[in-house]
Amino acid sequence: MSTATDLDAADPLAHFRERFVGAASDLVYFDGNSLGRPVAATAGRLGTFVEQEWGGRLIRGWDERWMDLPTTLGDDLARICLGAAAGQTAAGDSTTVWLYKLMRAAVDHVARTDPDRTEIVIDTDNFPTDRYVAEGIAAERGLSLRWIEVDTSAGVTPEQLREVVGERTALVVLNHVAYRSAWLADAPELTRIAHDAGALVLWDLCHSAGAVEVELDAWDVDLAVGCSYKYLNGGPGSPAFGYVAERLQDELTQPIQGWMGHADPFLMGPGYTPAAGIRRFISGTPPILGMVAMQAMLELVEQAGIEAIRAKSVALTSYAVELADAALPEVTLASPRDPARRGGHVTLHHDRMREVTARLWQRDVIPDYRDPGGLRIGLSPLSTSFDEVERGIAAVAEAMR
Amino acid sequence: MSTATDLDAADPLAHFRERFVGAASDLVYFDGNSLGRPVAATAGRLGTFVEQEWGGRLIRGWDERWMDLPTTLGDDLARICLGAAAGQTAAGDSTTVWLYKLMRAAVDHVARTDPDRTEIVIDTDNFPTDRYVAEGIAAERGLSLRWIEVDTSAGVTPEQLREVVGERTALVVLNHVAYRSAWLADAPELTRIAHDAGALVLWDLCHSAGAVEVELDAWDVDLAVGCSYKYLNGGPGSPAFGYVAERLQDELTQPIQGWMGHADPFLMGPGYTPAAGIRRFISGTPPILGMVAMQAMLELVEQAGIEAIRAKSVALTSYAVELADAALPEVTLASPRDPARRGGHVTLHHDRMREVTARLWQRDVIPDYRDPGGLRIGLSPLSTSFDEVERGIAAVAEAMR
Repeated sequence: MSTATDLDAADPLAHFRERFVGAASDLVYFDGNSLGRPVAATAGRLGTFVEQEWGGRLIRGWDERWMDLPTTLGDDLARICLGAAAGQTAAGDSTTVWLYKLMRAAVDHVARTDPDRTEIVIDTDNFPTDRYVAEGIAAERGLSLRWIEVDTSAGVTPEQLREVVGERTALVVLNHVAYRSAWLADAPELTRIAHDAGALVLWDLCHSAGAVEVELDAWDVDLAVGCSYKYLNGGPGSPAFGYVAERLQDELTQPIQGWMGHADPFLMGPGYTPAAGIRRFISGTPPILGMVAMQAMLELVEQAGIEAIRAKSVALTSYAVELADAALPEVTLASPRDPARRGGHVTLHHDRMREVTARLWQRDVIPDYRDPGGLRIGLSPLSTSFDEVERGIAAVAEAMR
Repeated sequence: MSTATDLDAADPLAHFRERFVGAASDLVYFDGNSLGRPVAATAGRLGTFVEQEWGGRLIRGWDERWMDLPTTLGDDLARICLGAAAGQTAAGDSTTVWLYKLMRAAVDHVARTDPDRTEIVIDTDNFPTDRYVAEGIAAERGLSLRWIEVDTSAGVTPEQLREVVGERTALVVLNHVAYRSAWLADAPELTRIAHDAGALVLWDLCHSAGAVEVELDAWDVDLAVGCSYKYLNGGPGSPAFGYVAERLQDELTQPIQGWMGHADPFLMGPGYTPAAGIRRFISGTPPILGMVAMQAMLELVEQAGIEAIRAKSVALTSYAVELADAALPEVTLASPRDPARRGGHVTLHHDRMREVTARLWQRDVIPDYRDPGGLRIGLSPLSTSFDEVERGIAAVAEAMR
């Protein structure tokens, strides 16, 4: 078994760690999958933005840069970490609002083209907001939800999806990486199964974007959403993003028809005409400051490359599993043991984990707790060292004693 | 006629001007009603937030402050500039998303309680995004729009509203200050007329919040929305806000049911149960950085007091009208001459104004242009001096020659 020191010395991405605020402190941060650390450059960039761009260019900033920022930043996200060509991704809103807009766009489209398809397929361990949005849309559009029962330590398998999709399925809503177990879904295979049944698919990438390889175009995905505050380190509540495959953009419309999704926002005339392309999925005035805060991290992700990031992510989670196996015999792994089926975090199960988490927080070791009995260890690849993992697992062992 | 120097010398709020980035420059900023200047303190506060709060507290920030920020900031907005008691206002999302959520909440409620009311009343010069959202909701909910025809240099009068509301009216959607003409609607009287007809009212406060006195509670308003990037200087695309009168909160539900509007967001169980009170109108993870950027301005508004701000606003727009009357004989005033019916901007009409605006921008005089032929002069009370108004109107006169 390699030591943390050996692993850090051999890590080609180790030098990125110093680019983050507070990474050199003694605090062990096991929650980079809930809220990533700020990149050190971000504070300065925000200051420059306020003083020079907002303060200096004032309203002219809209013409000069901001109007296009939702889609230029979307294209950056697409190129750097979504495996998507330009023109299909836009930043803005929250993940929840994107889920509402894109689920509605999908089911309203199917209602026009194939009205017998009246089911939304979703799994019981899908992230709560996805389930709540789907529940609301099903109620308001007269659809029903078809649930895939999922174990909280696993995720949706191709076999499970095959069993429930069919000629009644309008839309399948899945998480790429499960928020509790870190189950990494077989996205290309699940997308194919949904398509073979004639359904559309929406992928939630919140727990995978920036940590796991995503190939939306190659997988032939229809719709996707994700947030930027986890592995994309955009800050608390930073703008989310939505992806709509180019082949669907002209057929779909979304319900929150605001001026920024209009074909000509400054015409300000009567009647809404949706813009061409991805812009029709934008609604209101986009949150520019939040977009500025995302950029420094996106640049680091591009420099490191998503393949190298994923390789380090696998090494970090594997090391955490190895240490937990050795030091925490009373604990169960509530994440896939196979790294090919595991995203960027590891969940350890024990009935006392709520109490253990509280104790760890008092000692500046910061994992997350998720019912039932899950200690969730999120390992953000660019800001986490193997030494941090070792110190953290040792602290868990001590807290459990 | 007083000189600009006299007026600035007598202005009790003059000292606030130095608190804004760039206000001392030679640039004439006549667009503070589209995007307010940054408060000088904002860059530093954002830096501190990134380094210490986000970077230092990390995920713990949610428990410590951020979960409540949408409603504590909402309460600050309510107290400082909306005339509303605590517990009725939340910050977040864009104005467009708030319009969608609150219009849907209103018409869905009326559909349950009074299904014969199938009309949304709205005026032809309402801000485009309000009209587009209303149009979309009418189409999806099987309602119809009843238009009040409004002159682009005026706004909705009590007589006009009285003519169209009745037993078919579900909801009336009005702008407090019209984006083109600056018409300041008689909000208490219009609200009363709508209520007498048995309808709900939604006020869009985008062009009034922070510049004009608003008394949502005293006027018995049902619903309101507004943005924070105009007279509240929150920055491009800063978070919007929504107000729902306490008496309606438990009866209304909104369609974008996300985890942050759930009665217990971290329960993460099956089934959506809306939170009590204003929180049920929140959807996704709130944009914290954008909320931090709004706070410095809100403090200045509180220090100055909204009555004093409104008094200066009236003095600024009156001075602009006076100068335009004298120096621009070929121009028509496309705003109310009576300051009691005028918000914080003044629109001057001439067929050549598009060209004049372009010429002014080249000379660092920054008004806005709005069809048809409107040069819009927005005078943000705390950051604009009378001298700036004088220099700007002189530049308009020169550009027109």
